[in-house]
Amino acid sequence: MEGDPITALCTPALVVDVDIVRRNSQRMLERCQSLGVQLRPHMKTHKTIECADIMTGGSRRCIVVSTLAEASFYAENGFDDILYAYSVPFDKVERCAVLSQTLSLFQVLLDHCDALEQLKKRPLRNGHKWHVWLKLDCGNGRAGVLHSEPGALTLAKAISEAEGVELTGVYAHCGNTYHCRGVEQIQHVAQETTTLVLHFMGKLKALGINCKSSIGSTPSCSHPIKDMAQLSEVHPGNYAFYDVQQSVIGSCSLDDVAVRVLTRVIGHCPHRNQLLIDCGWTGLSLDGAGKLPTGYAMIEGHPDLKLLSMTQEHGRVEPISGTLDYSKYPLGSLLRLIPYHSCATAMMHPVYHVHSSGRLVGKWMPTRGW
Amino acid sequence: MEGDPITALCTPALVVDVDIVRRNSQRMLERCQSLGVQLRPHMKTHKTIECADIMTGGSRRCIVVSTLAEASFYAENGFDDILYAYSVPFDKVERCAVLSQTLSLFQVLLDHCDALEQLKKRPLRNGHKWHVWLKLDCGNGRAGVLHSEPGALTLAKAISEAEGVELTGVYAHCGNTYHCRGVEQIQHVAQETTTLVLHFMGKLKALGINCKSSIGSTPSCSHPIKDMAQLSEVHPGNYAFYDVQQSVIGSCSLDDVAVRVLTRVIGHCPHRNQLLIDCGWTGLSLDGAGKLPTGYAMIEGHPDLKLLSMTQEHGRVEPISGTLDYSKYPLGSLLRLIPYHSCATAMMHPVYHVHSSGRLVGKWMPTRGW
Repeated sequence: MEGDPITALCTPALVVDVDIVRRNSQRMLERCQSLGVQLRPHMKTHKTIECADIMTGGSRRCIVVSTLAEASFYAENGFDDILYAYSVPFDKVERCAVLSQTLSLFQVLLDHCDALEQLKKRPLRNGHKWHVWLKLDCGNGRAGVLHSEPGALTLAKAISEAEGVELTGVYAHCGNTYHCRGVEQIQHVAQETTTLVLHFMGKLKALGINCKSSIGSTPSCSHPIKDMAQLSEVHPGNYAFYDVQQSVIGSCSLDDVAVRVLTRVIGHCPHRNQLLIDCGWTGLSLDGAGKLPTGYAMIEGHPDLKLLSMTQEHGRVEPISGTLDYSKYPLGSLLRLIPYHSCATAMMHPVYHVHSSGRLVGKWMPTRGW
Repeated sequence: MEGDPITALCTPALVVDVDIVRRNSQRMLERCQSLGVQLRPHMKTHKTIECADIMTGGSRRCIVVSTLAEASFYAENGFDDILYAYSVPFDKVERCAVLSQTLSLFQVLLDHCDALEQLKKRPLRNGHKWHVWLKLDCGNGRAGVLHSEPGALTLAKAISEAEGVELTGVYAHCGNTYHCRGVEQIQHVAQETTTLVLHFMGKLKALGINCKSSIGSTPSCSHPIKDMAQLSEVHPGNYAFYDVQQSVIGSCSLDDVAVRVLTRVIGHCPHRNQLLIDCGWTGLSLDGAGKLPTGYAMIEGHPDLKLLSMTQEHGRVEPISGTLDYSKYPLGSLLRLIPYHSCATAMMHPVYHVHSSGRLVGKWMPTRGW
């Protein structure tokens, strides 16, 4: 109920501090403004209307999504200028075509000539064009055509020359910043990606092709380098919530993490020197295994505790050293988990409980599926 | 659309072979019948009405659930005789009370005297009693009072003597069968758990206390031992779907696994000798990391492939040895993942696509939350 303290919630529950979300979002907007690049925030972490509203500064324009379900959800809720930043899947071309014909600006992405053929086979109606970003792999090692391959330039040229198709931009995700520790390493990767993209843009220009450029990842955009000012856009997303992983990378401090999973003690196991909590992997996800000395999450205010393991609805907590003092954790008492990876944790929850200074102010309902 | 082949689905998609679900369920019903124990199937794997209907042989009676959200969902859909087999959480006592006063038979579970106090503080109205199972830990090492502790008997006695409360039964989950390999090991654990429970029942009888007994886990109930006939109930759940994990344990063969995640090839990465597929951890879960030579899942018909890693919406696939022949996996082609842990995979999907011999026959919508 609105106005209630979050401690009144049944657990496990994902709670979002809306003031921190606003602060994180405002800082990213200002950072991009002063850099002179367009921020295109990524929706994949939260997948809600309300958080998208905050991240776009209320404009509801210029977002990027990871699934077509997100694209449709935002389109149905008045958002526009949506980039579906996922190598256009052949089974979803028709749904993409419909969105392209409905929105003022729906954009897709590809990294293979076969995908371009799929788009050409489905020309858009009513004077619409396919708006296509070329996905470039600048060292991330996931999707994208390798920046160093001659085929990258050939594909860009083919997109720009195809009938009914427009080369909107060149898109690179520097997810390799997730291996960094500290600002210096983050900025090294950001520099590398930016330089490679700008170099590629130069080669396009030499061919007479002008289009946008975009790089992203929350670490790189939390600590942008000067050269990023030469890009058209950036597309970070996790920063609205942040998480323990981002604090370990160096993107943020723990004070910037907007989300917690509330959980309660439901068992005492002195013969194993453990507590049981009512949060298993359905409430937290299994992301972060083996990454932290405190286990699958951090337990706020209890740096001496470790979330050792989880089953579907149970978590096992033990002290990092010594013997557990059970009088400090009576059955029913509340603990606050700071998630290792907020994208993965948010995914597990059908509703987020939003609060300001610990008082409930509303609920956010994410979209799911593909 | 009903009647369409499952290959027409957009991916990733969880598909359920309803004929295998029926066969697995029928076998478990017959196994329990010939053993002479009541089957109380667990709903936590699928959380759907339709599958619960099949597992109860259409009776919609006598089920066990892992969350109160499941309990409410089934209660609202005409199910009764529901056991909420989770150490009764103090924040949910009122909701449990309401269900106890609504259903003919709603049962809770506890393993601590503080929980009993909580129930006594909320006496049920209209002549209803709290129906309480005592959770016993017989070596599983999660929830439950240790079978060897004198406190176990004291707690059972306290439950049976409390006003407005009835000791319905003694409940043990032999989840330690999940460490087994092969029928012999499974039956060794099943024997151990059964013997300990029956021994405890004997001690209760000596005190003049008579109540039910139940053990569970899919491995033990897939290969029951003779002594389990002396129990009142068993409570397996995963068996409706089974999964790769259960086949590794020895509960079933791979032919018994009813679920697949359909996924499509969306990228070729010859410079890394990898394929990209459109299933990340949002479509499969991260359960099973490091457990299989084929990575996070098995790829049906392709024992030579490994699902190496996943991010939110991407999976990286590589050959276990040698060089990938990309002509065998054109962009857009379909692969079928056999999940390592069907409970964890099902949890990621808002809808299950149900088929018979590869033709869609309907959709099942699971409940979520707590």
